[in-house]
Amino acid sequence: MQPLNPALAKTFAPPVMEARRWLEGVVFPPDRPLINVSQAAPVDPPPEALRRVIAEAALNRPEAHLYGPVLGNGDLRAAVAAQFSAAYGGAVAPAQVAITQGCNQAFCAALATLAGAGDQVIVPTPWYFNHKMWLDMAGVQTLPLPCGPDMLPDPDQARALITPRTRAIVLVTPNNPSGAEYPAGVVGRFFDLAQEYGIALVVDETYRDFDSRDGAPHDLLSRPDWDRTLIQLYSFSKAYRLTGHRVGAMVAGTERLVQVEKFLDTVAISPSQLGQIGAVWGMEHLQDWLAGERAEVLARRAATRNALTALPGWRLKSAGAYFAWVEHPFADSSAALARRMVAQIGVLALPGTMFTPPGDPVGLRHLRLAFANVDGAGIAELASRLALLEA
Amino acid sequence: MQPLNPALAKTFAPPVMEARRWLEGVVFPPDRPLINVSQAAPVDPPPEALRRVIAEAALNRPEAHLYGPVLGNGDLRAAVAAQFSAAYGGAVAPAQVAITQGCNQAFCAALATLAGAGDQVIVPTPWYFNHKMWLDMAGVQTLPLPCGPDMLPDPDQARALITPRTRAIVLVTPNNPSGAEYPAGVVGRFFDLAQEYGIALVVDETYRDFDSRDGAPHDLLSRPDWDRTLIQLYSFSKAYRLTGHRVGAMVAGTERLVQVEKFLDTVAISPSQLGQIGAVWGMEHLQDWLAGERAEVLARRAATRNALTALPGWRLKSAGAYFAWVEHPFADSSAALARRMVAQIGVLALPGTMFTPPGDPVGLRHLRLAFANVDGAGIAELASRLALLEA
Repeated sequence: MQPLNPALAKTFAPPVMEARRWLEGVVFPPDRPLINVSQAAPVDPPPEALRRVIAEAALNRPEAHLYGPVLGNGDLRAAVAAQFSAAYGGAVAPAQVAITQGCNQAFCAALATLAGAGDQVIVPTPWYFNHKMWLDMAGVQTLPLPCGPDMLPDPDQARALITPRTRAIVLVTPNNPSGAEYPAGVVGRFFDLAQEYGIALVVDETYRDFDSRDGAPHDLLSRPDWDRTLIQLYSFSKAYRLTGHRVGAMVAGTERLVQVEKFLDTVAISPSQLGQIGAVWGMEHLQDWLAGERAEVLARRAATRNALTALPGWRLKSAGAYFAWVEHPFADSSAALARRMVAQIGVLALPGTMFTPPGDPVGLRHLRLAFANVDGAGIAELASRLALLEA
Repeated sequence: MQPLNPALAKTFAPPVMEARRWLEGVVFPPDRPLINVSQAAPVDPPPEALRRVIAEAALNRPEAHLYGPVLGNGDLRAAVAAQFSAAYGGAVAPAQVAITQGCNQAFCAALATLAGAGDQVIVPTPWYFNHKMWLDMAGVQTLPLPCGPDMLPDPDQARALITPRTRAIVLVTPNNPSGAEYPAGVVGRFFDLAQEYGIALVVDETYRDFDSRDGAPHDLLSRPDWDRTLIQLYSFSKAYRLTGHRVGAMVAGTERLVQVEKFLDTVAISPSQLGQIGAVWGMEHLQDWLAGERAEVLARRAATRNALTALPGWRLKSAGAYFAWVEHPFADSSAALARRMVAQIGVLALPGTMFTPPGDPVGLRHLRLAFANVDGAGIAELASRLALLEA
């Protein structure tokens, strides 16, 4: 096909869509339905009260159907600023918040302000595949930073990767795909490193509402001049079950948001109004409900840990938020294993190869299990089925 | 601010947001309220029946809150394929349709598949500013193709611009900002040219529902192998007043949509579910209503033509869909004129400089008036106020 932008051609196809295609033509018997732990996505809609708020806005609020400000509605920006200021013991102003059409878009917008063709960005591996895809299509070179056996990236190893073309370091905590919760000390050392070199630290906290730790997971927003180094990303999708509305957020310096506004105006014009209305209502009214959601996710994490620890040959490397990162005991690559799991045991999970550079031995040996999509009984059933897999 | 991607830094700030800032601190007396002809945006919400459909989906359809397919919902893709096949006398399959978070995003996705840093794209001037902004931030060189006095681009002049780095030609018809409806013969010659050189022809038809011509405005979709050259873009925002939901579409070859899917997965994940539900319902139930909307816009165009033709010193160059492109009689640049129009006559319009390369004499001499936002009385009042402007 001509013409074809080689930078886009070079990157891979969307992993979640590819995995969905593995299901085509496969029949799952009623007594052994598919267990889908492939995507971090709530399977239920938001609570009825929130659905009602969105429905009433659709009926009665004319502005819910019209363009809004490029950087998002003032009430949602203010709500994020207030919540983040309180949660992190810092000072975030509404003018330091941008609302996006989902957190993926927040990442793209942030990176578009930082790095273009020929620049470099440091990303721990295993990485979140959409981050890698954006960097690829923008012509940005990704410098992989392999996590240790504890699934944590090492700031000293990152330092050794920095060159004059390096523009940013990207962290995801709690991590996708590993679930690892990065200790405050580790995140702080990455901030110091970025500050020292005058590069940006991008911290994607899509799963922050399900962090097992009480209190602030890091102190970055309380540091003076945080806005010169830090770009923090957030998603409303997981917390309030709003994936279908596409609402995310970015916290950054106002100078950077001037640049972000250019990108969002061009790619989005403005975020969904109904999504924003739902998000601000959720932040104001669903904190108790969200605490219950978090407790349920943490219970599922404990169940996953117990089930997998008891599974011969399998090794749980880390688990948190929505994900467990597990080493499998088979000779096949994770890519081949994931495909035969669909056929042999009716389980859809993403192979580690979707989160690592080609040929990376870690990718070949691991799977990501999005356990938060499955309840306790489902986790037990998942473990039983994994036990049935043959070499 | 460091680091800063120079390609993004180089492009300009969002014109609509800049123009909105001109209103800050200005008091508009009750007997002379602001006339806002700056943005092509419906000022009213969708019809109540459509609002009700969206509200009921928010309440009762769980999937309206969850992720959908990256390229859009099957029913909406099928509806677009059927309508476009019928309207253009061609064969468009559902698999040749992608749904996006608005038509701007469709443009970005299309161009991302075509051109990267160092490539070139031909764009008639005056251009749609967000097109130029995307090309800038992607590091793509824009080759300006000045329209003639009839506001039409010339395929022979375009031919003279093509180099080995040229990847595409972009047309917008009916045009933004000029309103010009490109004749089928002109569009056809651009297709032939693109086909001859193996480059793409991108045709943005955001305003197609308000084209004054009956029947197909061009024959491209009826040509064999259209999908090897043509990428056609569409917006549901204007037709069904869904600007706040961000729903657009792209019609292109399936091979290209494989690449588009990578971009959309990374930047969007999936389009808004409620927006898609509204769009498909609108396509199925609001065609008579839309015909009335079109008749009203055409009446406003006629009123605009009459009013501006009678205005001493002003020259209407073209008018169609939402826009009129007018030459002003003053010595100031259009940028200065637009600012003093806010203060002196309470009219907000965008200057031609926002649609042309820096220093372009055409940009300095013209304004874009988004007349479709204003009813007949408003258009008469607009003309009366323009008549009050002093040199």
